[in-house]
Amino acid sequence: MVLPGMIEAAANRIAPYIHHTPLLTSAQLNSIADTHLFFKCENFQKAGAFKARGAHYAVFSLDDKEAAAGVITHSSGNHAGALSLAAKNRNIRAYVVMPSTAPAVKVAAVKSYGGAITFCEPTLEAREAMLKEIQQKTGATEIHPYNDERIIAGQATAAKEMIDTGESFDYIVAPVGGGGLLSGTALSCHYFSPQTKVIAAEPRGADDAYRSFRQNRLIPSKNPDTIADGLLTSLGSLTFPLITKHVYDIIAVEETSIIKAMRLVWERMKIIIEPSSAVPLAAILENKNRFRGTKTGVILSGGNVDLNKLPWK
Amino acid sequence: MVLPGMIEAAANRIAPYIHHTPLLTSAQLNSIADTHLFFKCENFQKAGAFKARGAHYAVFSLDDKEAAAGVITHSSGNHAGALSLAAKNRNIRAYVVMPSTAPAVKVAAVKSYGGAITFCEPTLEAREAMLKEIQQKTGATEIHPYNDERIIAGQATAAKEMIDTGESFDYIVAPVGGGGLLSGTALSCHYFSPQTKVIAAEPRGADDAYRSFRQNRLIPSKNPDTIADGLLTSLGSLTFPLITKHVYDIIAVEETSIIKAMRLVWERMKIIIEPSSAVPLAAILENKNRFRGTKTGVILSGGNVDLNKLPWK
Repeated sequence: MVLPGMIEAAANRIAPYIHHTPLLTSAQLNSIADTHLFFKCENFQKAGAFKARGAHYAVFSLDDKEAAAGVITHSSGNHAGALSLAAKNRNIRAYVVMPSTAPAVKVAAVKSYGGAITFCEPTLEAREAMLKEIQQKTGATEIHPYNDERIIAGQATAAKEMIDTGESFDYIVAPVGGGGLLSGTALSCHYFSPQTKVIAAEPRGADDAYRSFRQNRLIPSKNPDTIADGLLTSLGSLTFPLITKHVYDIIAVEETSIIKAMRLVWERMKIIIEPSSAVPLAAILENKNRFRGTKTGVILSGGNVDLNKLPWK
Repeated sequence: MVLPGMIEAAANRIAPYIHHTPLLTSAQLNSIADTHLFFKCENFQKAGAFKARGAHYAVFSLDDKEAAAGVITHSSGNHAGALSLAAKNRNIRAYVVMPSTAPAVKVAAVKSYGGAITFCEPTLEAREAMLKEIQQKTGATEIHPYNDERIIAGQATAAKEMIDTGESFDYIVAPVGGGGLLSGTALSCHYFSPQTKVIAAEPRGADDAYRSFRQNRLIPSKNPDTIADGLLTSLGSLTFPLITKHVYDIIAVEETSIIKAMRLVWERMKIIIEPSSAVPLAAILENKNRFRGTKTGVILSGGNVDLNKLPWK
């Protein structure tokens, strides 16, 4: 169980390694959305995404003996880079199993932090088999990208920083993929700002969390198809119950709304966010009446985007 | 003559209307440049560029009778939008003469702030003739984009904010087009941080300031050709002597360096800057030995870029 003390411990433990990211506002976006938005800029986070929080807490929670054997994960996304950076900061090895189809920018990020990459076929079975094989040889500890209490406590520190600003939020809206960030956000609000309702935003093309939440059973993601490449995964056995208990609602949004919201943030705020980060703003703009006149926090989850493959033009 | 008191007055006068923009650092860019860089983020400024500073000071310096007749300028760039915003904030008219070739995004910016646009042929003669015609009808006061002491004092407030952080800069590097920002930066350093050397950065394809500085006479820009569309103009009769007197050096840079520096800022800092903003970083990266190990301020002049026309791919 992730108790408030664990979130506080995570915040202290990771403080030397991560950025206390800014909470930005934009008069233009407030005017467009007709509400008061506060953007938590995890796109400015180390390794370009909130994932650095959980990865650092997990890696720095290992005892010295465990740590000496290194850490391992399979990931094609931001968790791979974040775990490699955290391992580098602890001077241990990170083994990363990546599908042969992983985007070049994500591969480059892992390499730049010194992660040891093994490529495999792009199936979940191949990834898990390769992970087990390397783990047996090395004794490395697996760090799951979201279904892990240390990861959840680490990701919870983003919302805690928002709350610690003293701003009183009616809502905080976070994107949901595997649910690590969302669970952490919901727990931080539950413990430190109980009047704040947490709403998740999910692409309609990968709406397993939306359907699981509505039907109250864990429905895995099947053939997800969305530009929001950070939100393709299914909820986990730890994150689903936390979300059921502490999240107020989940909103599913169209792809065109995601691209439009992403471009709005680029043009009006002059900051670079990846498509997954735009999903909460897309949810707000698709549901203006619901958010009108409120104080709403928005977690911009990351900024890792291939500048050669932008979703417009 | 722009005295220190005028720069301080400008800072106070414009404070309610502009952003006190952040001074950002990037461990990755420090590592790449092997020095300590401090980026003044005027890309986050109102209307997307430092131009909002000078425009507001000029507009709010008019007496009520002058102001009642409105302000006028000819511009195809950021000054047009900034002047329109400043006029809107003072509840007066802004007349903007734009060449028929002006980029759609700049036209849209002027319109969004309520500026009254008149289009004309894309020649300096046509622009000036049209301006005189409208001015005779309306009595509007012309606000020149850079060759005006109020504008120079307003632009000087950006460097003043940098100095007021308490950071001690060896260098501040600013881009140079007409020289309003550069003159103001040089004056603020001269008055408030005399140990800081101001260096200008200019595209080699529009190097009139570089040549004027070296030959010690005002050489106008002829057929400038650069992606840095904010730096096409020539120095003015006010800015050239100030630059000669107070600027330490001018560095001209290649187009490929500008594009590379722009992309580096996008990828590593996750912020959007326009090509003109990338020219100082390009100068630093082309001259690493010169800046190695120093504390160098970099003015990111603006963030208005057409996302459909990026200079890569």
